[in-house]
Amino acid sequence: MTAHYTPQPRKPLPPEFLDQLGALFGDRLALGEAVRLQHGGSETHFAPTLPDAVVYPHSTEEVVALVKLCVAAEVPVIPFGAGTSIEGNTIPIRGGVTVDLSQMDAILSVNAEDFDCTVQAGVRREELNAHLRDVGLFFPIDPGANATIGGMASTRASGTNAVRYGTMREAVLSLRVVTPDGRDIRTSRRARKSAAGYDLTRLMIGSEGTLGIITEVTLRLHGIPEAISAAVCSFDSLKGAVDTVVQSIQIGVPLARVEILDDMQMRAVNRWSKLDYPELTTLFFEFHGSPSYVDEQVRTVEALAGANGGGQFHWSNLPEERSKLWKARHEAYYAAVNLRPGAIGWATDVCVPISRLAECITETKTDLEASAIPATILGHVGDGNFHVVFSIDPNAPQEMDEVEAINSRLVERALAMDGTCTGEHGIGIGKQDWLVAELGDAVDMMRMIKRAIDPKDLFNPGKIFAL
Amino acid sequence: MTAHYTPQPRKPLPPEFLDQLGALFGDRLALGEAVRLQHGGSETHFAPTLPDAVVYPHSTEEVVALVKLCVAAEVPVIPFGAGTSIEGNTIPIRGGVTVDLSQMDAILSVNAEDFDCTVQAGVRREELNAHLRDVGLFFPIDPGANATIGGMASTRASGTNAVRYGTMREAVLSLRVVTPDGRDIRTSRRARKSAAGYDLTRLMIGSEGTLGIITEVTLRLHGIPEAISAAVCSFDSLKGAVDTVVQSIQIGVPLARVEILDDMQMRAVNRWSKLDYPELTTLFFEFHGSPSYVDEQVRTVEALAGANGGGQFHWSNLPEERSKLWKARHEAYYAAVNLRPGAIGWATDVCVPISRLAECITETKTDLEASAIPATILGHVGDGNFHVVFSIDPNAPQEMDEVEAINSRLVERALAMDGTCTGEHGIGIGKQDWLVAELGDAVDMMRMIKRAIDPKDLFNPGKIFAL
Repeated sequence: MTAHYTPQPRKPLPPEFLDQLGALFGDRLALGEAVRLQHGGSETHFAPTLPDAVVYPHSTEEVVALVKLCVAAEVPVIPFGAGTSIEGNTIPIRGGVTVDLSQMDAILSVNAEDFDCTVQAGVRREELNAHLRDVGLFFPIDPGANATIGGMASTRASGTNAVRYGTMREAVLSLRVVTPDGRDIRTSRRARKSAAGYDLTRLMIGSEGTLGIITEVTLRLHGIPEAISAAVCSFDSLKGAVDTVVQSIQIGVPLARVEILDDMQMRAVNRWSKLDYPELTTLFFEFHGSPSYVDEQVRTVEALAGANGGGQFHWSNLPEERSKLWKARHEAYYAAVNLRPGAIGWATDVCVPISRLAECITETKTDLEASAIPATILGHVGDGNFHVVFSIDPNAPQEMDEVEAINSRLVERALAMDGTCTGEHGIGIGKQDWLVAELGDAVDMMRMIKRAIDPKDLFNPGKIFAL
Repeated sequence: MTAHYTPQPRKPLPPEFLDQLGALFGDRLALGEAVRLQHGGSETHFAPTLPDAVVYPHSTEEVVALVKLCVAAEVPVIPFGAGTSIEGNTIPIRGGVTVDLSQMDAILSVNAEDFDCTVQAGVRREELNAHLRDVGLFFPIDPGANATIGGMASTRASGTNAVRYGTMREAVLSLRVVTPDGRDIRTSRRARKSAAGYDLTRLMIGSEGTLGIITEVTLRLHGIPEAISAAVCSFDSLKGAVDTVVQSIQIGVPLARVEILDDMQMRAVNRWSKLDYPELTTLFFEFHGSPSYVDEQVRTVEALAGANGGGQFHWSNLPEERSKLWKARHEAYYAAVNLRPGAIGWATDVCVPISRLAECITETKTDLEASAIPATILGHVGDGNFHVVFSIDPNAPQEMDEVEAINSRLVERALAMDGTCTGEHGIGIGKQDWLVAELGDAVDMMRMIKRAIDPKDLFNPGKIFAL
């Protein structure tokens, strides 16, 4: 099996550096192979590379001290949240120290009147929402995994609610960041908007740990809607499903969630989550608002679905039914990979202008059907963003090459439609050539910024681009 | 009168440079004092400083050629749109060449299905909306002036619709930028979202021309709502008005616009726009949606206003009545300055978390009332953002110092509430010390980025911060 990246030359950690690390973190410094392996792999197809050490800070001050040590000793430093990223974003390809932020999991403040909260980077999205429920608020960004808020900021994550509530780009008000020169900065105040200087908040979001370590995040929150309705609807064609969504958006329906799952993905979901949906192209919808406004939205979308070859809507109005529906959707990646027992998953994503989405998905489906490798399509259709998940036989090395070729055709197709090579997974190791194909000389401007802020190239080195 | 900044040392343009400029721009190179004065001042209180030359490019290629000339000759280059910025953002304090983009005013494409369009930087917002009306779309960002889209991107502008539709940060999908090293880059593709590398789009937005020259902008658009209702409501207290808005937002009403104008501002508006509103604290509302949903929003907000000391709602449901209402609001700055004939205007803005807004406005009002200088309060109350406009006697130099002291207290008050020194005007010349007070060491990170991208400090030098 190809590794899809070349591990970089690495030096062993100097003994005096290890002593300093031990003095700083005590038993929160891990050097054993099991822990290092856990921090050196990914949930997808990338071959693991181990960090030399893993530390578990408890405070921003500890992260500052760590960064100063690493920079002085020229040791790479890789921030790590839940390890659920998709493009090899946290694999320490040059070794170094992985900074596992999972023990920085305090919810520092909730300002219900201002619809915001401040959390440490290691808080996970599900735990945050459990905490917020009592004050009638929620945090909408929901990648498939129960990721950490810091990791979600680092990869500019989004999820099923982005069509209505935006992505991490819109969800973050401010960040606390430890920079490569060992400073502890706050990128913005807590006001809703600001025109005060360069937008460091947005620069850090999506920078995948290459410009600093995010230790705290201030998030915008939303009120739990008075009424929520969720529904599932099958279609006789991919195009009919996509057209229903595009027309709903064009007519002004503020869809809260709308997910597309193709026939293969529905088969996977049924098996994995023990459900019995029709195994056809399917839309999962959610509507938010006042009861009468939700009714109005539903009537509009039902009429459009009917006109586009959609079947009956199957409603889930009770919270526990809705949870079951969305749990099945969130587990779609694991369901797809497990179409073959013991398989390795490869997940990719692209995003195109919605006017091109039906064409892009349809052509991709044709390409997938020409291969014997099981693959599913699912996506955030309201954003023009969709995923393909491949279920790869680890004992058939040629499958990796075949998937690489299909993925290349997918990205080329999206770029030709003025789309992007990644809607929400980031660049990591896997999409570096595509980033250049997408943005050309703009990538040099990214490199200039990286060199200015991290001149020794120690922060998650080799990610997004090689310097 | 104090200048509120120190003009910097400047060298005359080398004759061979002027020859090259002439060869490139022909009669679109202006060296006369009247044109230079027009590009060296501002609509507010800053003393003018003239550029050495003004050029009017017609294409990105011409801007590239210009930038290469200026960088080779080490001549400052200052992008200029409509010249309506508030904090001295375009004043060429070190001289150099002002690049007036107003002749790059083509609307390059409108993708109605994707709700986006691409325009040259010199297109003005009102002209864009006139063009879009026929396809049922609109561009919501509306600073008071009829600014250019490029200028609005450069200062991260917003306006009355930001509470519902966001600011330029959310409105821009992609930029075409000429960088200091003479490259012509596009910061993003046209997809709705992307996780592809650093967010150069957001980095450029709000950078006030210090990192490059924006020549084209791809914007998100919105469908013109099926129903629009606008209303005006007077309150017996500032706090009652603010509380009405905060409670409306907390209950989930998607206010499209909600503006506060204090008694002084209402007096100014009545005089300037020949209207006869009660001269009390007033909210200007606008509601968007389907007819039934607008009705529902209106009923909710009317009830809240009534409970908070609001009077009757006066409705403007006809398009021409609404236009009159919002024209009066957009001219509020000119109305306020003209409370005294021949006065000079000083406009400032801050933004705080909405839970602190009533307190911040009330304390500010008390401070204003202690001064004899006429001053009005008006603002985008749903964002926590408000302005104070002072009407200064040019023959009373001590008034400038008095306003400076009041402004300082205002910004200190906002910062103490975790707010920002500017919600939408930018830093320019006027708020540089406050930027450091607000963000501390983070400003050094901005400087590192500036030095990396513009190492000779030629792009709108001396703005946002001194290097």
